[in-house]
Formats: sequence, structure tokens, C-alpha cells
Amino acid sequence: MTVHALGTPAADQPVAAMTIPRRGPGARDVAIRILYCGVCHSDLHTARNEWANTIYPCVPGHEIVGEVTAVGSDVTKHKAGDIVGVGCMVDSCRTCSACHDGLEQFCETGMVQTYNSPCADAPGHTMGGYSEAIVVDQDFVLKVSHPREQLAAVAPLLCAGITTWSPLRHWNVGPGKKVGIVGIGGLGHMGIKLASALGAETYAFTTSPSKRDAALALGATGVIVSRNAEEMAAHAGSFDFILDTVAASHDLDAYVTLLKRDGTLCLVGAPEEPHPSPTVFNLIFGRRSIAGSLIGGIAETQEMLDFCAEKGIVSDIEMIAGTDIETAYARMLKGDVRYRFVIDIATLAA
Amino acid sequence: MTVHALGTPAADQPVAAMTIPRRGPGARDVAIRILYCGVCHSDLHTARNEWANTIYPCVPGHEIVGEVTAVGSDVTKHKAGDIVGVGCMVDSCRTCSACHDGLEQFCETGMVQTYNSPCADAPGHTMGGYSEAIVVDQDFVLKVSHPREQLAAVAPLLCAGITTWSPLRHWNVGPGKKVGIVGIGGLGHMGIKLASALGAETYAFTTSPSKRDAALALGATGVIVSRNAEEMAAHAGSFDFILDTVAASHDLDAYVTLLKRDGTLCLVGAPEEPHPSPTVFNLIFGRRSIAGSLIGGIAETQEMLDFCAEKGIVSDIEMIAGTDIETAYARMLKGDVRYRFVIDIATLAA
Repeated sequence: MTVHALGTPAADQPVAAMTIPRRGPGARDVAIRILYCGVCHSDLHTARNEWANTIYPCVPGHEIVGEVTAVGSDVTKHKAGDIVGVGCMVDSCRTCSACHDGLEQFCETGMVQTYNSPCADAPGHTMGGYSEAIVVDQDFVLKVSHPREQLAAVAPLLCAGITTWSPLRHWNVGPGKKVGIVGIGGLGHMGIKLASALGAETYAFTTSPSKRDAALALGATGVIVSRNAEEMAAHAGSFDFILDTVAASHDLDAYVTLLKRDGTLCLVGAPEEPHPSPTVFNLIFGRRSIAGSLIGGIAETQEMLDFCAEKGIVSDIEMIAGTDIETAYARMLKGDVRYRFVIDIATLAA
Repeated sequence: MTVHALGTPAADQPVAAMTIPRRGPGARDVAIRILYCGVCHSDLHTARNEWANTIYPCVPGHEIVGEVTAVGSDVTKHKAGDIVGVGCMVDSCRTCSACHDGLEQFCETGMVQTYNSPCADAPGHTMGGYSEAIVVDQDFVLKVSHPREQLAAVAPLLCAGITTWSPLRHWNVGPGKKVGIVGIGGLGHMGIKLASALGAETYAFTTSPSKRDAALALGATGVIVSRNAEEMAAHAGSFDFILDTVAASHDLDAYVTLLKRDGTLCLVGAPEEPHPSPTVFNLIFGRRSIAGSLIGGIAETQEMLDFCAEKGIVSDIEMIAGTDIETAYARMLKGDVRYRFVIDIATLAA
């Protein structure tokens, strides 16, 4: 099968219309007609080979929502007509301790990413959700139970949602906890929504006072302007957990000092230039930690989707046509999106 | 009461004999005739005002073992003739959440340190264990049940011992866990002994192959020369917990990459120059943490002392006379001590 897609043949070429092959569904496979695909910053990094590991042609996209069109003979979890999601992974070894623990993102032999991972299918590597169809092993296909009209806004849950949900759950964010979310972008806006919905007292950190109202609208209990030393000092030693979604190099000490004893600052963005080295003193006094977290496992992704469906949570999105992708990338680089672009995949056929 | 001590009147003066006042015991106090006091690197930092906060005259020493000579009328925990220890703290607020949780070292109004903390006694700040006697509130006096002949070697447990014990216990080091100890010095040699005695598979990291036999003699399962890339690579992703006792600036990434998923690198030394900024990627992949830890609370210090008495664990020491203190400092700076100097306080009267 050949389908329309958006991709690029080389780092210096724009992402544009192309056609790509898709395998027919094997016994354990689910064939999906893609409806919507979110636009993640990783897509752009990979398309431009900014992580120096891109295999071309590159078709990005790992925030996928679609409809099942066919299933293989051994598939029990999904059926034609189901609305499903696919996130950052399409396979893993299934046997290592990480896979056994439902944390396939840490698979010891390496997860198979939805795009840019070597695989058996032509052309020898995975190609992602900027395309009309995808075929995925049933175990890496998620059920989506949101109403039809919300499906475009569900797409970003598959990466931005789970990337914030997984650490919030792992560090037991909930009622009685005071939680901070650093950065109000694609990830951060989901962090605010999810932490609030989990019952935590949730503060948004931002460099721009102009984002105050927007953060409150997302459900934040309060907003702290990180450039305002007085506002920051008023919260010293008071946070149980701070989720830092900012990938640009910045001062971590400012957030570590806001943590309570035994508090954790969790980073989900990796900066190109290193952060200034965090002060060890701040870790020693208060037994605080700086940690990292990577997307989330399949089971917790399903848990997050179900939680969001129950609570009516989706991403705030701006829908684009396939032909808008390069403009969207340019705007994303300037932070000019509230808060996630989603491609209407129906426009790819045009 | 006036007692012989070792101290210094100014940052540029050597630590030498002086006399200092001690209060008479109040109703809740324990008066202690000091037998031995360990020599910690913090003593030197403070004597020389290297942390820029020293109050003079300065009498260092917070690894104290002695005999109770008198107790106040309300004292129930100790009696004359008891062998006791005093560590890094002599008081705290007793009411904050940290004190409530038995973690007085994190007292929210600040612990009263055994030396260099403001206090009501003359001359207005605490003076430490390089002295013939000390008077301490009963709640900050520990019971020592080691045999008499081991008491000099017990002294370093009060700082070096608890500084390594507290994180080993907090991060659940025990049977089935693979644990690393970075640095084989005053703290590190206790870390090796304690982690081994707790039942963990314990590896010592050292820059010098010459320390291999010594580390094995301390109880290490194995020794890894940190400058040997091949030895390090053989242990990638295999440690549950690594306790880093090295205060000099060094590369943390080399240790973070040796951690398993969800592993923690815990720092107990604060470098003067910052460590090179640790790579966020290593934290994100594997959900690893870098944390800090500070000495330990009173309850866990007692737990450690009891554990050590039961297992026959003491520090490896070199005993010195009071007049040797500056020579000992000079040797400590060169790492020329296996592994802790302890002052025989009986020599102060001479």
C-alpha cells in the first residue's frame, strides 16, 4: 500500500508532500487510517537532523489519532471502526525488565520509535504520523474514548500528555501536594491541566507576565513569574515536585531552592547547550533531587487517555493543513502557538 | 568551668592550645568528659574560614566520644558513667516538620551545630569537640555500646558514619542491591563498610589502582578504577545507587550512566568549584536522579551506632595528640590518612 505523507528527503529540504509505502497488516497488526497528527518539537529536530541521527526519507509525527480499518487474525484488543491512538513507540523487546514493568520507553535493547527507528518494513526505518495510514502491533495501539469532536485535540496527549503525566504519577502528584510546572508550551500546558486534574495545588512558572491569565485559564492555582525574585522567594522551600518542561538552557538552582525537603525537580527537556551546573549545596540541604523522565509506558499512556476522557481533558490546539507545516515549524520556534499544532490528515490527499 | 581545648582566634592563625568556658549542666543537660574527637575536613574549612562564615574563636570537632560526668535533674536518657557520642548537632527547634520527622539536620529554623552556631553560652557561639568537656541537651547525646578499646575508632561514626549511613538507608540499600561508593577517604571508607554490612553488593570507585587492595579489605565486593573507561563501561546501567563522597569538582556523567533505571547518584560533598554540568539526557533516559544528603537525624544516628556496635564496625583511624593537629590537617589535604585522624583528648591537658 502506498499513502500520502509529509516528509523530507534530506536535512536541508523542507517537509512537504511525498508518498510512502505501508505494510499490509500481519497477524498481530492494526491498520489505522490516521485522522490527526500533532506537531512536536522532536519532529522538527529530526526532520532537520539536529540530533545527527536522522535516517532519510524522514516522515515525522508521533501524536497520532485515527480509525482502525483492519486487524490481523490474532488481534484481540482492537477492531475495525475503533478510534485509537499511537504515540512515540511502535514496538519494544517485550522481555527486558523495563518492558516487563510496563515502561517500554526504557526498553534495554531500545524501543522502536514511531519514526526514525530501523525496522523490517520498507524503506528500512519507521515513518510516522504525518501520513494517511500506519500499521502498528496491537500492543502499541491505545484506545481513545473521547467524543469524536475532540479527536484532533486528543492527538497531543500521545506525546505532550504522557510526557507530563508519567512523571506527575511517578512522583505521586495529587491532593495535598504543591506542584510547579515550568514553561507554558506544548508540554507545560498539559502539565498544568493534568496536575490540576489530579488534585494538586498547581503553580505555573513563566518568564512572561503576559502568560498569567492563560495559565490560570488552564487550571493553575497560581502563576509565578520566574524573573521576579520576590515572587520566587515567597515560595522558597514549599514545592513537593516541580516539572520543568523547558528545553533551553536555564538556571535550575532557582527551582531547586523552591523545593521542600525530599522534593524533586524533574526535567523532561534536554537542552542543546548544558544548563548552568546546579549547586550541590541546594541538593544536600533538603535532600533534594534533580531527575529526568522520558515519555511513558503503554499502560500508563492508556491510563492517561482514560483519565483525560473521563475528565474531559484535551490539548489546546491550532489545526493546520499539511501544506502549512513549514509555517507551523517557524511559528513553533518562536513560541507562537497555543499550545500545539495538529495536522488535519484529510488535507494530505488534496 | 574552664577547659583545655584546641582552637584558633583567626583564619590566619594555626589551631593550637587554648582554654574555653563551658556552662554548668542545666536540668536537661548532659556533661561529658571528652575522650576522643575525630578530625573532619569541615573542621579545617571552618578553622580557616573557607566557607566565609566562621565565628572566632573557633574550636572545631563534631565526632565526639566521651563519658558522662553529670546530668541535670530532668535527664532520663543518660547517667554518669555512660559512654556517649555527640555528632554535628547539639540542638534544633524541635517543632518543625523536619524535627518532627527525626531529621533535625534539616530543621527549618536551622540546626544548632556543634561548633560555629550562635548560642546563649559564652562566648556566644558553640565550640566543638577539640576540648576536654562539653555540655549537651540530652536529646542530642547518643548512646555508644561499643567496647571500651574501640572508642577512639567510634568517634568518626558521628559524622563520617552517619553521613554515609543516612543516604544508604534512605535509598534502601541492602541485599539484592548493587551499590557504588565514590572516593575511598574518611566518608568513603565508612560507606564501603556500611553498605557491605547492610548486605549490598558494594563496589568502590577510585582514581588510583593502588587503593584496590585497601578497598577490598574494607569489605568491597569489587573495585572499579574510574579512570579506566573499559572497567567503567563494563558496569553501565547496573547500579541501584551510587554514593559520591568526593568533594572536589568532577564528572558526574561517568557515574550517572552506571545507574539502572530509577537509580540515584547521591552527593554528600559540596565542591568549591562546581562540577561540570551533568548531561540531562542521562537523567531522562532511565529516569535517573542526582540527589544530595546531609549528615543524618538523631534517631538514625543512634540506629547507625547500634548497628555498628552489633556488627563490630568502627572507623579505621590514626590517633594523634593535640599538638599534631596542624600536621594532621596538612596530611589530610594530601589524602595521606587511612582513613580518619582522631585526637586523643587526654593529651590536651599536657
